[in-house]
Amino acid sequence: MSELRHDPIQKRWVIIAPERGIRPSSYYQVQPGSAGEDEFCPFCEGNEDKTPPEILAYRESGMPENGRGWRVRVVPNKYPALRIEGSLDRKGVGYYDAMGGIGAHEVIIETPFHDEDMADMSVNNLARIFKAFKERMTDLSQDSRFRYVLGFKNYGKSAGSTLDHPHSQIIALPITPRNVAMELKSAKEHYQLKERCLFCDIFQYEIEAGERIIRVTEDFIGYTPYASRFPFEIWIAPRTHSHDFTLIQDKQMNSLAELLKEVLMRLRKALNNPPYNLIIHNSPNIKGSKKRSHYWETLEYDWHWHIELTPKIIPTAGFEWGTGFYINPVSPEEAAKYLREIEVY
Amino acid sequence: MSELRHDPIQKRWVIIAPERGIRPSSYYQVQPGSAGEDEFCPFCEGNEDKTPPEILAYRESGMPENGRGWRVRVVPNKYPALRIEGSLDRKGVGYYDAMGGIGAHEVIIETPFHDEDMADMSVNNLARIFKAFKERMTDLSQDSRFRYVLGFKNYGKSAGSTLDHPHSQIIALPITPRNVAMELKSAKEHYQLKERCLFCDIFQYEIEAGERIIRVTEDFIGYTPYASRFPFEIWIAPRTHSHDFTLIQDKQMNSLAELLKEVLMRLRKALNNPPYNLIIHNSPNIKGSKKRSHYWETLEYDWHWHIELTPKIIPTAGFEWGTGFYINPVSPEEAAKYLREIEVY
Repeated sequence: MSELRHDPIQKRWVIIAPERGIRPSSYYQVQPGSAGEDEFCPFCEGNEDKTPPEILAYRESGMPENGRGWRVRVVPNKYPALRIEGSLDRKGVGYYDAMGGIGAHEVIIETPFHDEDMADMSVNNLARIFKAFKERMTDLSQDSRFRYVLGFKNYGKSAGSTLDHPHSQIIALPITPRNVAMELKSAKEHYQLKERCLFCDIFQYEIEAGERIIRVTEDFIGYTPYASRFPFEIWIAPRTHSHDFTLIQDKQMNSLAELLKEVLMRLRKALNNPPYNLIIHNSPNIKGSKKRSHYWETLEYDWHWHIELTPKIIPTAGFEWGTGFYINPVSPEEAAKYLREIEVY
Repeated sequence: MSELRHDPIQKRWVIIAPERGIRPSSYYQVQPGSAGEDEFCPFCEGNEDKTPPEILAYRESGMPENGRGWRVRVVPNKYPALRIEGSLDRKGVGYYDAMGGIGAHEVIIETPFHDEDMADMSVNNLARIFKAFKERMTDLSQDSRFRYVLGFKNYGKSAGSTLDHPHSQIIALPITPRNVAMELKSAKEHYQLKERCLFCDIFQYEIEAGERIIRVTEDFIGYTPYASRFPFEIWIAPRTHSHDFTLIQDKQMNSLAELLKEVLMRLRKALNNPPYNLIIHNSPNIKGSKKRSHYWETLEYDWHWHIELTPKIIPTAGFEWGTGFYINPVSPEEAAKYLREIEVY
């Protein structure tokens, strides 16, 4: 059984999840579930019985569940970091604080085709993936034990992906991750002072400044942040204020899919198909929090959902991990210019 | 010229250092200075003229500077992330805040021998490396522009090392890194409440609990933290309260070297020579801060220096980077037990 543990120095929760299956003899090997290029893939069409039963699938009408004919399919993670059953069981452990590893861990299989990377997919299929994120995140947010529902994608082994078949993941957490809590604090302070959204202000400034813009569409902005931690770090966000990704409408999903496809194509060409991580920074889930605090009352004004996309083109050095302080060898202005100008069509 | 930029959402400073030499055509290649196994190594004995002139060296008496005969040698980083000359030049840039990339970036060449890893070295030489850290960190702390002097080591390519020859680094920063500031905040709150050091309390509790201990000596504790972010994360700290690493005495340096050697030997055997990062979490430098704030007045009681050692045996997934929330598949109790029991002598 996995467990959440609180670090009293960094004031951060960590999931200790030994049941993911790593044993002493294989500590220095890769994570369970890893597959090489030629190995059997449980995510490919026809192998639906090799995953846990599906939670959601978009498939041709009339085709039965857990069989062929799907376009996007969501299944529970076979090696979940957190389990859906049980109570939070908050407790003190000697000097420390712990709680049960309660949550959810799902996999969005983005396509039936093993080698169809996100950058190759049709805009329609990308929109379908966002639709799956929306449906599952909406559903998980109903559970008042969950404080945060995290949607993300790891692409490439050095970005943490253990299966090559294109997939994303959703993790529902009983706590709000520290970085999200810090972003929210900044945004809240800004709103209290100015009655304006911090993110809206920044996006507006970036559109005026122009030098860090990759692409601005009617609905979305794609840009490289002023203080980018990583080379070619990219943010994508709705231009109209919205705190909750799950409120996204179909038309916006298409527009988001279009912009993401363009960004991924540019990244792939510019950086020779780099590994990357994509994270949806959504609003915390306040279903279970409302009764606890007035802190959340202005959440819909404070927060602005956005996607953070970070290619991993240089190894992260030790002091970044240990200090929270980053050295980025590529200026975001240079990165944005390069991405804007590279020809992909 | 590199620049420090402030992230208004994460409230974190980032160094944008384009002068480190990465150009668009090589964005997806490794960092400058990388060398393969067989390539020329500027850190080997006999190649002293291929580095900038040395800042410090421990060598046989009578041997001239910048020549052979040294045991440990400190030189400026040829591709510094920060430069020593100039003023901080704090300024607003449109919506944002920036300051000049002022600091220092030095390399400790730990041994004349290319293939003598830290785990192979004599205790005497390890103590010599700590002595070099102490001397250089003491010297850099005299500069009131520097708020923090960071000593660290990247071992192995996937831990960010770009040269195989054993070396450590020192970076002097005009700001205190965010994680250090957060640790200090926790420690300060604890001290104000209890008039006891948070770190001392934790180390004492760990010695009593025992299950996460790797080794306790007269002077030092080596253990795996309760909420370890990474598999086999290890902390090493002095058992007697001390806020400042640079106050370490010769006898303690030997004792520290002994413990570190043992820990590194155990790690190497347990995890098949894993890449790792080692960071000295020292006290912030208050030479330039005293005049600004009472916050620092109790620093010597609040802070407790320690070493954080994090092997990199699994790739870090996307959501860890993006959220500050970690999943660790190996419990620290299991890791400590495995490290304690593995035979290395």
